[in-house]
Amino acid sequence: MDLKTLHKRHVLTPWVAQGGHEAPVVVRGEGVWLYDREGRRYLDLSAGLVAVNLGHAHPKLVRAIAEQAARLAYAAPGLFHDGRALLGKALSDLAPWPEGGRVFFTPSGTEANEDALKFVRHLTGRPKVLAAYRSFHGATHASASLTGENRRWPAEPGVPGVVHFFAPYPYRSPFFTEDPKEEAWRALEHLERVLLHEDPQRVAAIFLEPVVGSNGVIVYPEGYLEGVRALCDRHGILLVFDEVMTGFGRVGAAFAAERFRVVPDLITFAKGVTSAYVPLGGVLVREGLARFFDEHPLPTGHTYSGHPLAVAAGLAALEAYREEGIFARVRSLEGFFREALASLVAQHPLVGEVRGLGAFYALELVKDRKSKEPLSPWHAPPSPPMRALLRALLGEGVYLMAKHNVLLVAPPLTIREEEFLEGVERLSRALWQVEVEAL
Amino acid sequence: MDLKTLHKRHVLTPWVAQGGHEAPVVVRGEGVWLYDREGRRYLDLSAGLVAVNLGHAHPKLVRAIAEQAARLAYAAPGLFHDGRALLGKALSDLAPWPEGGRVFFTPSGTEANEDALKFVRHLTGRPKVLAAYRSFHGATHASASLTGENRRWPAEPGVPGVVHFFAPYPYRSPFFTEDPKEEAWRALEHLERVLLHEDPQRVAAIFLEPVVGSNGVIVYPEGYLEGVRALCDRHGILLVFDEVMTGFGRVGAAFAAERFRVVPDLITFAKGVTSAYVPLGGVLVREGLARFFDEHPLPTGHTYSGHPLAVAAGLAALEAYREEGIFARVRSLEGFFREALASLVAQHPLVGEVRGLGAFYALELVKDRKSKEPLSPWHAPPSPPMRALLRALLGEGVYLMAKHNVLLVAPPLTIREEEFLEGVERLSRALWQVEVEAL
Ligand SMILES: Cc1ncc(COP(=O)(O)O)c(C=O)c1O
Ligand SMILES: Cc1ncc(COP(=O)(O)O)c(C=O)c1O
Repeated sequence: MDLKTLHKRHVLTPWVAQGGHEAPVVVRGEGVWLYDREGRRYLDLSAGLVAVNLGHAHPKLVRAIAEQAARLAYAAPGLFHDGRALLGKALSDLAPWPEGGRVFFTPSGTEANEDALKFVRHLTGRPKVLAAYRSFHGATHASASLTGENRRWPAEPGVPGVVHFFAPYPYRSPFFTEDPKEEAWRALEHLERVLLHEDPQRVAAIFLEPVVGSNGVIVYPEGYLEGVRALCDRHGILLVFDEVMTGFGRVGAAFAAERFRVVPDLITFAKGVTSAYVPLGGVLVREGLARFFDEHPLPTGHTYSGHPLAVAAGLAALEAYREEGIFARVRSLEGFFREALASLVAQHPLVGEVRGLGAFYALELVKDRKSKEPLSPWHAPPSPPMRALLRALLGEGVYLMAKHNVLLVAPPLTIREEEFLEGVERLSRALWQVEVEAL
Repeated sequence: MDLKTLHKRHVLTPWVAQGGHEAPVVVRGEGVWLYDREGRRYLDLSAGLVAVNLGHAHPKLVRAIAEQAARLAYAAPGLFHDGRALLGKALSDLAPWPEGGRVFFTPSGTEANEDALKFVRHLTGRPKVLAAYRSFHGATHASASLTGENRRWPAEPGVPGVVHFFAPYPYRSPFFTEDPKEEAWRALEHLERVLLHEDPQRVAAIFLEPVVGSNGVIVYPEGYLEGVRALCDRHGILLVFDEVMTGFGRVGAAFAAERFRVVPDLITFAKGVTSAYVPLGGVLVREGLARFFDEHPLPTGHTYSGHPLAVAAGLAALEAYREEGIFARVRSLEGFFREALASLVAQHPLVGEVRGLGAFYALELVKDRKSKEPLSPWHAPPSPPMRALLRALLGEGVYLMAKHNVLLVAPPLTIREEEFLEGVERLSRALWQVEVEAL
């Protein structure tokens, strides 16, 4: 039986109805390209799911994985292990805390958020947590409960005590303004009101993506993150940044916390920490808080916590980021990326807005720029033009992450300028096809 | 700074208070042995956390991982991928369903149970699930809610709708009998009563470890699993076997379902599927149920679902199990393992009972055989003699998984007979040290 048929018969694909799902069978990767069996290539324009920050088949990672597999692929997390210690130290050095920090390693982003939730409740003794609408924090039940969109619904009823608030979204303001300054200010006023009604003394933490990721790369207007930090400080609430997408160079710094100079108490991470080569995630906790667990048993554990193969990949990835100056590279290319994508707005009426920073952008697609009606409705299966666009993209040899009416452009951070321009060109052709059909 | 100090300063270890935790720094593994930096070796007598079924540095896995890392370490789960298709097919072939099955891949065991919970609720439209006391299903919030012991508590309040029942535990019967037949019968009567009070029509599924794992390798008396299956059939309830520990040869068969000839509707797995070399887990769903998701969107997703490096390790592990006849080997060595461990009961008053099957055994330790008072109380930190025993074991060069008053003896399935005897000898010496001190 051929591979595609086998896949459909025996493998369940995330989030979609299996019946209509189609995709190429990829077998090989190199740099920013994926190849199928026939040698047809696809530009991996969202770096998988915004994860393969160093591109495919990076020699340093390939070597580190092969070496560690031969030396020690796995050991129980109750033992100490060289790679675990070194990666813990390296991550603490990257974190924005002069006091340093400690890491609890997990196999994934969602488990990092699950554990962070336990940590903040145990650290504060408070029962509630706040999280934003239009956020994604993972698919296991508690992370899904934190999530502020439809991927939460299939996990409901979820864990009790999670309260959602609205965060800034300048393109479609929940606060009835078009002025970014006003947006930030009103969003903080709204958050304060929610806190007041929930009792800030009962709130353990606020979970926040410092840049909203899969829900459309929303960069918060200036002053918002600082304001949230100040609110937290005022009420003894912990601030958790979910940097699963934003970490490790995506926004041109180790963490968004560094880029925006706003210091959270905990950071959850995954994806870029190994450039996704081996499943790994974790929670960084600043030392002053982590110390609590010297006396109190850590309230969690996973078979694969601090998995030796995964931490070896993490160490190699951090080394590659440093040696190749990846974070600075992203900062220096930010203007180039943004301009190249801005050309799409000029050419394509379907593109309502391009937004983002670093190597992290979204195209929000609309039927009409004035009404801003989404090309595909939120919280519903893809509309026919959206489906046509995704088909056209594959036809043009581009694979990217799409959600509702948003396309994510978040390539490997190693992408060459001409490759990026080629991607934009292919995107443009696919958009054009759909625009022509719509006429 | 030396590695041990770095580890303590920057890495959080599961479940324990960090302050008092001590362990060797392991750097290398080979077969059933782990080595620290000084070349001191430790017998890995629980195969990590009952996971490294093929032992350390197995050449087939090492090679497969190195090759796949060079070819394609990661691709988004929305794409099709050769290894994913092949492993899906291979797992379907191992599953106990003539109709075949489909797999949803996860990064871990706990995520497999989280997803299985969503699946059974969506498949049946029913809100409640039942799970056993004295079970462990994982540390994320919903799997913790399913869990029937103290590792659930730090995740409470958990997801609503989970109800716990008592399952057989012949050594300390919750049903006031010492007769295994009576134990099975009364346990079924009890379960039926719980169902009656919960309304069987509101129960989506029963989650069960077919052999209780980390809570003490409890093998259910004959007739119990069949009886649970019959109850499920009577009420349209789905039966989920959590085979995270029991799968892939641990009980001398691909799955415990096969060994006991009781057929569940879903199987969750992890650990042995890759011999823990790369984090991987998943949910096997029988075809008749999986078909539901052809029309209905799958209610979950993970970045690392069907991770190419992980599925490559899975394929290599399944090949090794087959080529080396591992499952049959375990069956043929079962008598040998059991007898070797039985000698400990004869020699050591601390050993209340040895129980298990396949390559999966527990020593339940007691202060006194008659009163059966546990050597270390349940749901409390290790007692001084238990701590002394664990220290003595490390001193003797043995690492194993312990919980409260239970030691797990569950070595790599490739262990040689003389290595196993050596392990029993070391165990015996460690027990003897504690017994002498206690006198
Ligand atoms: C911000 C954020 N948090 C958490 C997650 C969940 O990570 P994982 O898929 O590894 O569970 C994601 C995944 O896309 C994410 O983007
Ligand atoms: C029966 C069982 N289910 C689930 C799990 C959780 O697996 P993981 O640690 O990979 O999340 C375990 C872990 O020991 C287990 O023994």
